[in-house]
Amino acid sequence: MTRTEQQDALTAARKLAPVLARRAAEHDESGAFPRADFDDLHAAGLLGLMAPTRLGGTGARFADYTDVAIELATGSGATALIFNMHASVTGALAHVPDDVARTLGAPDSYFVTRDRILAEASAGALYAVAMSERGAGSRLSQLTTRYERRDGGFRIVGSKAFVSGAGHADAYLVAAKSSEPGADGGPVVSYFLVPAGDGVTVEPTWNSLGMRATGSHDLHLDVTVPADALLGGVEGITLLLAQVMPHWLVASYAAVYVGVARSAIDTASTYLEERGLTHLPAVRARIGRADAEVAAARLTVAEAARRVDADPAALDTRRWVWRAKLLAGDTAARVAASMLEAAGTSATRRGHDLERIFRDARCGALQPPPSDVCADWLGVAGLGGDPERDTAVPRW
Amino acid sequence: MTRTEQQDALTAARKLAPVLARRAAEHDESGAFPRADFDDLHAAGLLGLMAPTRLGGTGARFADYTDVAIELATGSGATALIFNMHASVTGALAHVPDDVARTLGAPDSYFVTRDRILAEASAGALYAVAMSERGAGSRLSQLTTRYERRDGGFRIVGSKAFVSGAGHADAYLVAAKSSEPGADGGPVVSYFLVPAGDGVTVEPTWNSLGMRATGSHDLHLDVTVPADALLGGVEGITLLLAQVMPHWLVASYAAVYVGVARSAIDTASTYLEERGLTHLPAVRARIGRADAEVAAARLTVAEAARRVDADPAALDTRRWVWRAKLLAGDTAARVAASMLEAAGTSATRRGHDLERIFRDARCGALQPPPSDVCADWLGVAGLGGDPERDTAVPRW
Amino acid sequence: MTRTEQQDALTAARKLAPVLARRAAEHDESGAFPRADFDDLHAAGLLGLMAPTRLGGTGARFADYTDVAIELATGSGATALIFNMHASVTGALAHVPDDVARTLGAPDSYFVTRDRILAEASAGALYAVAMSERGAGSRLSQLTTRYERRDGGFRIVGSKAFVSGAGHADAYLVAAKSSEPGADGGPVVSYFLVPAGDGVTVEPTWNSLGMRATGSHDLHLDVTVPADALLGGVEGITLLLAQVMPHWLVASYAAVYVGVARSAIDTASTYLEERGLTHLPAVRARIGRADAEVAAARLTVAEAARRVDADPAALDTRRWVWRAKLLAGDTAARVAASMLEAAGTSATRRGHDLERIFRDARCGALQPPPSDVCADWLGVAGLGGDPERDTAVPRW
Amino acid sequence: MTRTEQQDALTAARKLAPVLARRAAEHDESGAFPRADFDDLHAAGLLGLMAPTRLGGTGARFADYTDVAIELATGSGATALIFNMHASVTGALAHVPDDVARTLGAPDSYFVTRDRILAEASAGALYAVAMSERGAGSRLSQLTTRYERRDGGFRIVGSKAFVSGAGHADAYLVAAKSSEPGADGGPVVSYFLVPAGDGVTVEPTWNSLGMRATGSHDLHLDVTVPADALLGGVEGITLLLAQVMPHWLVASYAAVYVGVARSAIDTASTYLEERGLTHLPAVRARIGRADAEVAAARLTVAEAARRVDADPAALDTRRWVWRAKLLAGDTAARVAASMLEAAGTSATRRGHDLERIFRDARCGALQPPPSDVCADWLGVAGLGGDPERDTAVPRW
Repeated sequence: MTRTEQQDALTAARKLAPVLARRAAEHDESGAFPRADFDDLHAAGLLGLMAPTRLGGTGARFADYTDVAIELATGSGATALIFNMHASVTGALAHVPDDVARTLGAPDSYFVTRDRILAEASAGALYAVAMSERGAGSRLSQLTTRYERRDGGFRIVGSKAFVSGAGHADAYLVAAKSSEPGADGGPVVSYFLVPAGDGVTVEPTWNSLGMRATGSHDLHLDVTVPADALLGGVEGITLLLAQVMPHWLVASYAAVYVGVARSAIDTASTYLEERGLTHLPAVRARIGRADAEVAAARLTVAEAARRVDADPAALDTRRWVWRAKLLAGDTAARVAASMLEAAGTSATRRGHDLERIFRDARCGALQPPPSDVCADWLGVAGLGGDPERDTAVPRW
Repeated sequence: MTRTEQQDALTAARKLAPVLARRAAEHDESGAFPRADFDDLHAAGLLGLMAPTRLGGTGARFADYTDVAIELATGSGATALIFNMHASVTGALAHVPDDVARTLGAPDSYFVTRDRILAEASAGALYAVAMSERGAGSRLSQLTTRYERRDGGFRIVGSKAFVSGAGHADAYLVAAKSSEPGADGGPVVSYFLVPAGDGVTVEPTWNSLGMRATGSHDLHLDVTVPADALLGGVEGITLLLAQVMPHWLVASYAAVYVGVARSAIDTASTYLEERGLTHLPAVRARIGRADAEVAAARLTVAEAARRVDADPAALDTRRWVWRAKLLAGDTAARVAASMLEAAGTSATRRGHDLERIFRDARCGALQPPPSDVCADWLGVAGLGGDPERDTAVPRW
Repeated sequence: MTRTEQQDALTAARKLAPVLARRAAEHDESGAFPRADFDDLHAAGLLGLMAPTRLGGTGARFADYTDVAIELATGSGATALIFNMHASVTGALAHVPDDVARTLGAPDSYFVTRDRILAEASAGALYAVAMSERGAGSRLSQLTTRYERRDGGFRIVGSKAFVSGAGHADAYLVAAKSSEPGADGGPVVSYFLVPAGDGVTVEPTWNSLGMRATGSHDLHLDVTVPADALLGGVEGITLLLAQVMPHWLVASYAAVYVGVARSAIDTASTYLEERGLTHLPAVRARIGRADAEVAAARLTVAEAARRVDADPAALDTRRWVWRAKLLAGDTAARVAASMLEAAGTSATRRGHDLERIFRDARCGALQPPPSDVCADWLGVAGLGGDPERDTAVPRW
Repeated sequence: MTRTEQQDALTAARKLAPVLARRAAEHDESGAFPRADFDDLHAAGLLGLMAPTRLGGTGARFADYTDVAIELATGSGATALIFNMHASVTGALAHVPDDVARTLGAPDSYFVTRDRILAEASAGALYAVAMSERGAGSRLSQLTTRYERRDGGFRIVGSKAFVSGAGHADAYLVAAKSSEPGADGGPVVSYFLVPAGDGVTVEPTWNSLGMRATGSHDLHLDVTVPADALLGGVEGITLLLAQVMPHWLVASYAAVYVGVARSAIDTASTYLEERGLTHLPAVRARIGRADAEVAAARLTVAEAARRVDADPAALDTRRWVWRAKLLAGDTAARVAASMLEAAGTSATRRGHDLERIFRDARCGALQPPPSDVCADWLGVAGLGGDPERDTAVPRW
């Protein structure tokens, strides 16, 4: 792994951003999967970003990912969000050290499967995440999707919601609960990588205020998968992975919304320059304050990412991740709203980049964990408590 | 004129609000003129709200109008905005005292025309406003629409933008500049009430973030109108009317956005009660702060309206109108954004009432004069200056 | 009672405001009771503001009081706060209708006592409120001050905190708990008007960020009072009075802080004009936004006061009172902070009016019920609940 | 220069912070110079922080300074501000590379003088900055302090304002204008290091809302200094130094206010834990949001410092410095105000740490360049302009 390869990936993302931006209005309008964007991401080698170089990938760390995600999101927030899900699957697999996996009980076959998944990503496979369920949100303990051993593999039955890229992924990371309780009588929740195909059907429910092109539809599963679809090769590994992965589920969103916020400023600035309105003091004050706020949010995401790479499970790392999520989500919404005021009525025409960015930007603070929950957790931690123990049940 | 009739109008508006609300999502989706809403407004006698009782109307004052507009806007912001334009035309005509009109040079024929226009409103005619132009905004001095005397009437040629209800009004209030300069060599700007029909064509340009059902398309005019289409019966009356009418062009928006803000809270509250989430402290804090803020904005609109009725041209009245516009626009945007955070991701589905209200609510601060301009004017006035004289050229 | 008398009182308050303002810095510096201010209030007849005209007073309603309090507070927030306590005592006595008092069991002697108290106020007596206790805040159920029947009167022993005007009042409204339980076994809390003198000692504990001249010191009581010191002539009347009086304990603060906020703008404006800085766009924007915000808070206080006069016990009235408290407290703090930024470093010199106003203004949101509690209560009420029943124990 | 030495300095600062905190209330109350604090800073070797190791100092970079300043400011904002001035003088001298100094025309004697100044700092000398003047603010072009050649040295006559540590420094960095114009006819402004003593008198004018212990009094100069008091050994070097030093004059404040903001949270948290109020949701939300905001401001200061060390004159560096100043000042004021609301009325007692911190924290946004100016500059730069050229005259 050389830093050169990761720098190349960042350069590629930076070059792609304006290309994505040109298509973003159309994808937003139709709510269609950004096919051309992902063809470009594939061509640029970015689908293998998280895969190690020995498997044809870039060998990126989490901090490299956030840099890339911010760049992509300045072009298209929706494309960056879908990419984020793919990066979460591949990144989590790539970053669990072999010895940790072994300690968790991973059999030899796990490493073969993992390498195959990552090599296929390098070769262009796209993975999506099918974890949330209506009613349960993303709380694993509330899952209704079940699985049971069947024919040397597993039969999985259930329904998932908010599956970004649904219908366009090659495989889905699915969390499901065993039909049989564990040794301790408690629920056993496992992760599977379920290939697209028969038994995996998309119900097109996604039609949202913003981030429309993510196509985060419902996914219905009634499918039997081979044994090696069980991630880690061990049942019940989910909760443990969930502890290691919070950055992927939280900080990865944050990076996207920093990019969206940045694009709000850039779009407004270009527009104001074209219209000859840069001399207005109120406009300058809005641009100036937005600039500082987005710069700070970006640093916060970078710091969270740096710590995730250094010590992913530490409480302090989790606090940085919550700070990043809180600030990125709130900043994006506030900045995009202010930029719309700076630009004026004409920028609210549907199809205008700033109009779309305003809608996209509103979604960050609402994605789990929402800003109010992040603030509560940070407050508990700041007051010497443990958010996992002391907080009322979160709403997501 | 009895207060009973105006109370009846308010009651009617209150009854219509939930009816409008049920249709609002569909009108927003299609961007179509809310035909059924206006049939209901007509049936409830509300198109004659501003016409005097002797002409079949309700004889409403401006303060009565704002009460009605707030109620209608809790049902549908777009319908209330179209209604606002109709009320502006009829209200301005109804509220200029006869002696003032005579002092301005209005001939006897003016009163006949005015009464006809108002009587037709009572009978169901709908009027729209065609004042803004691309590039000129709503600054009368920059108008490019021209008129000249022709065949005992006037030929009017030009294009207008942001004409709410375009294609569905029976007549349009059009501001145009005479092709000949006035006695002092300066431009002569006059108002006409141009009937729909040949020579008045709609170009469907409106496709906006919010307030989509207003259908505020472009209007192209190449039409000859009879002499009595000249409002006031006198050329050049425009600027004077513009001084009397600021409340219609500014405070009337404010009433609409107070209604929109109120509906954001009501919609979120209902949703949170249905989902059993009213115990969450962060949700309660959001509802509580929004409630206080909207209540204060509503009082500000009411105070501005009271003063408009008492002394429409006073500087102090104008300050109240700017306060109302500033607070209503900012409050609506802020409150709707907060309510979306209180309700969570599910409420961002397109077609969900709160999702539409969030988009509608963002538009108020941008409508002329935008919040930044209102703040500047209030600042100048608060510092002992005269905003009309001391301020840099406004951007709208 | 004629409106003329109340208008005269308002005019007197308006004239006194600049006189109070000239002394405010000195009172703030020393933390001394504003003796000269109260001599002027007495001379202007304002100590009798709430007493009926038949007893030499002005016969003011609550709405009249808030108008007067706002004016006084533009001169000196601390003086207005002390006056507020006096007005609370006299206003509550004056506004409980005779028939209600009789229904509550007030004996004939009550009316004699009440009239004496109010007549003495008209003649210049000053009353203070000694209700809060350290630890218990203002929650009556937690009181530790006790009383027992003794020598045909009552012996009262305990300590009170935050007694504005302590050491300078002629008598103190004291809440105390009977040493014997009530008929139902529950605590009996009663109000007494305890004359200054032996057994009533002041411990000078007050030394606060803002509102320094209120001298809200601790008061130690070990005193025997005659029977007619029992307010209402009936034990256990406290809780009932507390239900009728929330406006005095809450909305009356709100009026003071609206005045303080207004004075922040006026002081900054004068300063900016003197320094020739009114052309700065950022300054104008700050003044403009502050102007609108304070105007709205003032309307909210006026609306709350109007409803308190019309229907003091209604839930809707209480909601308006909470709105007024929330907005006045938050607005004062925010506006004063912004005005300091508009004026710049020089205005932060101790003794500069704006420096004092900034500190005074910060106190409003903290006075009971603090803004966070008001927001919670409004949220509960807005979500269809009953704040008295559904809320977690408030912190004050 | 080893990183160990700088790490030691940071550790020393961290240890001193609670010591400074224990004295801060007393220094604030009296407005007296924190003598004991500076004895401790001297003992810990921190007065030599910026001096190179070869001269007995720590050899700190700017980023090391900001780390130290943040720690000291968590103990006492006022002490950190005085220290900041000392560090600005020594840091600017230490960080101008020898070759740059030579290019600017520095004679050999300059290096001797510079080394003496820095060595004396390592040995305990304290330097202060006397640059601002009443009326001129810190704009060098408006200076009224004059100097002329006299007796082989320079006679300096004039008055300075806002001289933190006045009366307690061993020497003052003074900016003065030559009584003779330069070769190009323009004004020649030079820097002198004027020793305390005869001809340097303090007028105790400082009595401020916050940061009271800085003793930023007026300084009157009527003094003759030897030739080597001319900094750089060359007249007219001032403007050039001013270009290199913006970080010292701007970003160095930012570090102090980040420390103040952090101490607001820590103080409030401790207080809330002691009072058993950490379970209140509104309190937790306030702590949580403040935590995220301060963390982001701290990262911004660190990033600005990193860039100052790498490329002090770059426009991008200046943008980061303005971001740091804007965010640190605004964050400190907002966070301290919120913490006071979290803690409640008891924390507003004068002498309570949080009460002082609230006042100290309000000063950051007002110090030059104030937040509104930073926002404007950032806006101009963000819109492709050059703040030095395109902005209206700043107010400071």
